[in-house]
Formats: sequence, structure tokens, C-alpha cells
Amino acid sequence: MTKIAYLGPAGTYSEMAALRYLQLSHPDLEHDPSIMCPYPTIPQAINAAENGNVEIAIVPVENSIQGGVTMTLDSLWQSEALQIQQAIVLPIAHALITRAAILTDIKTVYSHPQGLAQCQLWLDCHLPTVQQIATDSTTDGLQRVAEDGTSAAIASQRAAELYNLPILQFPINDQPDNFTRFLVLGRNTSHRQGTHSSLAFSLKRNMPGALVKPLLVFADRHINLSRIESRPTKRSLGEYIFFIDIEAALPDANCCEALEELKTVTENLKILGSYAIT
Amino acid sequence: MTKIAYLGPAGTYSEMAALRYLQLSHPDLEHDPSIMCPYPTIPQAINAAENGNVEIAIVPVENSIQGGVTMTLDSLWQSEALQIQQAIVLPIAHALITRAAILTDIKTVYSHPQGLAQCQLWLDCHLPTVQQIATDSTTDGLQRVAEDGTSAAIASQRAAELYNLPILQFPINDQPDNFTRFLVLGRNTSHRQGTHSSLAFSLKRNMPGALVKPLLVFADRHINLSRIESRPTKRSLGEYIFFIDIEAALPDANCCEALEELKTVTENLKILGSYAIT
Repeated sequence: MTKIAYLGPAGTYSEMAALRYLQLSHPDLEHDPSIMCPYPTIPQAINAAENGNVEIAIVPVENSIQGGVTMTLDSLWQSEALQIQQAIVLPIAHALITRAAILTDIKTVYSHPQGLAQCQLWLDCHLPTVQQIATDSTTDGLQRVAEDGTSAAIASQRAAELYNLPILQFPINDQPDNFTRFLVLGRNTSHRQGTHSSLAFSLKRNMPGALVKPLLVFADRHINLSRIESRPTKRSLGEYIFFIDIEAALPDANCCEALEELKTVTENLKILGSYAIT
Repeated sequence: MTKIAYLGPAGTYSEMAALRYLQLSHPDLEHDPSIMCPYPTIPQAINAAENGNVEIAIVPVENSIQGGVTMTLDSLWQSEALQIQQAIVLPIAHALITRAAILTDIKTVYSHPQGLAQCQLWLDCHLPTVQQIATDSTTDGLQRVAEDGTSAAIASQRAAELYNLPILQFPINDQPDNFTRFLVLGRNTSHRQGTHSSLAFSLKRNMPGALVKPLLVFADRHINLSRIESRPTKRSLGEYIFFIDIEAALPDANCCEALEELKTVTENLKILGSYAIT
């Protein structure tokens, strides 16, 4: 029986990504609620899959406005067993959920830090004096919204329906083109196919061209790099781990050759998987 | 009369960086409180320098544990007039400031999201059930700590002294080697000297080698790249702005040549300044 970990509780965008995954990959299981396992933080959801408590973890990795989800990248670098099985891109539209009848009655707004950041201009303009409280997920504040008419939450329309709470304004995200990419993570290493692959590496030495060499490995073979993101190694300021996405599948001969060469110009190299984006 | 904008109120790490800048660059002004201008957010501090309301803005740009400060990078890309005048690296050691006598009396912890993230393991271990409230700066929660014995804040030792509040535990950051790099921003474009330079650019097209070309411009001239960070353009998922730091001063002949070539392989190129790191 497949179990899916996601950043919960129900009503988060991660849950929407998990439901989309089910619809696409396991339509027979779509209406079986027992397979959905909410976790309170992203690292806990990832660890559940790493430790085999669930088969799959679905976590956000990048938003088109706010950029990389650093907790996901840092947890992926720590993981020993997980591979990316699939990527899912979802449009994000935030609702202001509150029992307040007018904006001026609102004293507190709850959301995930990414939710608050994606509505920053709207908040500065319409609710400049309210206290913004960061929660572990977009739906964590909904209990308070239910109890307290001066509280509001920034979450999905689906969250408002699930918790039976009214939407005062929609959409309130600053940029209409707001998308989040989610990763489907699992211990299954058998398939390794698809259109994209993700890798992460640290560098041997900080010297002229140290980062160019790994990138040339792909450019020389006409493999497109669709993304690069750096994260601190947490050892010392100025030392980084690089996460790259390439437009190729790892079993391709061209790509295999690139990986062999990549090993010679990196310190630690982690292969995070090949997958399709839906 | 020089005025310095920083992320306030008094007692933040940004204020400590501003005081360090004064000590190094304007020791005559060090004890003049009228030149210190606290702002409630990083973009507001940067805009104050951009608009000429102050001469200098001092803002965090990167932490050795949590990585880039996205608000600073995004504001730098928007800025038309500012140049980096200097970089200042400060060690960061967080204190738990509270009137509570024991940890179990604490119900709420306030800090900047970076402060909370840098103490995440400590919080998970010692205060797993407290509510974590994100504030615009590390010192924003100290008023609440003064009024309410069940509240705590994560901030500097200096903040505890300034607000006359007790420290219950110190240090509480998860990694002892915790450093933040701050930028001194101003409209002065005359000096452009130092050991490092910062640039930002977007790319013409997402194709094999598109990012390699700008990096090769420097590698071919033996100019070391000390950092690369990507941020979304906010136009569409998968389009990025790249921030790079190089170990060279812009007026160097070698570097001038590199910049000319860089213009031909980038879409928009922004020169953020040459400066020394102290």
C-alpha cells in the first residue's frame, strides 16, 4: 500500500500537488484518503520517505517569484536514499481567508513565509499595520481564523472550502504568474528516465574556473542546463553546494559520459534523479 | 552630514555592522547617534539610499548557514543608482532573551526568519511546542518580551543590554561558525576599487552553454569567481537573474576587457561595484 507524505495539514499547495500526482500516476487510489500522510514540516516529510515510513514524499522545491525552497534543497543534500521520481508544476493563487467582514477588522495574518512573501506588496498596501505570523504551512493558521474574527490566513481556495471559512479577497498574490514546482521523492531508483535530471555537488577548490569546469562538462556535450542554485555548505562563508538541473536523462550515453567527467572536477557529487515534469 | 540607513531598530546585527563601518571609515562620527537611521525593512533601508534620503545603507546579503538574503538581492537588481562601497563580515551569535526563569515557561519566540532558521535545531530540541513568530528584525520582538514573561526573542547580546532584558541562554545558534556578510551601499561611484566586484545579469536565451559563456569570460582571464547565486526574474518559472562575485577590481584592464565581452553574452548586465571586504 503506497503512502504519500506531504507538508500538511490538508489544504496546503503540497497536498494539491500530491492529489495531482495521484490523479496522474495512481488514478485507482485517488479517492482513498488513507494514503495521504500530512507532516508538519518539509524536513519531516522528506525524512519519512528517507526512512521508509512512506513510499513517496511530495515537497515544493522552487517558486517562480520567491525562488528556491532552501529547506528542500538542504534536506535533499542530506538524503542518502531518495531520488526524484517526477516534478509537478502547479499555478499558485492565494486567497485571504477570514471571518472579518472588512479589511480594517483584521489584526493578524498567518501564512507560510513563502505565502507572506508572495503577497508582500498586497499586504503593504492593504494591511500595512497587521502583524504577520509565519507558520509551518499555509493552512496552519486556519484554526485561529475559525476562532478569532480579527485573524486572517493566506492560503488556497481549497483550504477555505475544507475548513468551511469565507474568502474576503482573491487572488491577492503580487504577481499573477505564480507557479511552484514540486518534487515527488522516493527510494525507487529503478526507472531513472524522463526529460530532466538533477545533480548536486561541492567543489574541490575555490580557484579560477572551478565552477566553469562542471558546467563545461555539459556545454561541451550540448546538454542544456535549465537551472543552477547555490546553497552554503554551512562549513564556512564562501563555500557552496551547487544544485543543477539538466535537460537530459541520466541513462543517455552522452549523459553517462558527462557524469564520469563530472566526478573528476567535483568534490562530492550527488545524483538526485531523472524525471518527467508534468 | 552622513546618514546611515540600516535594518532597525537598535540592537540588530545590521546596526552592529553599521557601527563597525563607522569605526573603520569614520571614527570621528562613531559616537554621534544622529547619523544612525533605523528602517523597519531591508527594502526600505535600500530605498532610502537609492532616493538620497541617506548617504549609506547597510544590509545583510549572505549568511554562512542560511545562504543569500533574497530581499537584498532582489532590491539590488531593482536599484538604479546604488553601488557596493564595502563588505563587512560579522560573526553571529544568538542569545535567547526572555524574562522567563526556565525554558518551560516560554510560550512564544520572536525573531527575524533568519534568526529562527539559524536556531532551528536548538528550538526543535529545547522549545519544540512554542509558537515561532517571524518579525521584520531580530529586535522587533523585544517590546513584547519586556511586557510578557512567557515571550522570548532570538537576538544579539547587545540587544539584551540595550533593552535591559535578561539572557536565559547563549549562544543558541545551531552552528558555532555562523557569519553574515553585510553590504555598504551608496550612490558614490567614484572609487570603484578593492579586492572584489559584484555583477548581476540575465541571459538572452536558455540554451546549452548559455550560462557557461559568462563564466568562461572570467575563467579565460584567470579571474576567480567567489560566488554565484540565482534569483527568479519573477517573469516565468525557469528564468533567472545571476548574481556573481569576482576576485578583481573593475578598473583593472583584465577586468574591463571581461566586462566588454560579458555585455555580448548577457541580456541585462548590472555592475554592482568594486569593494574591499573587512
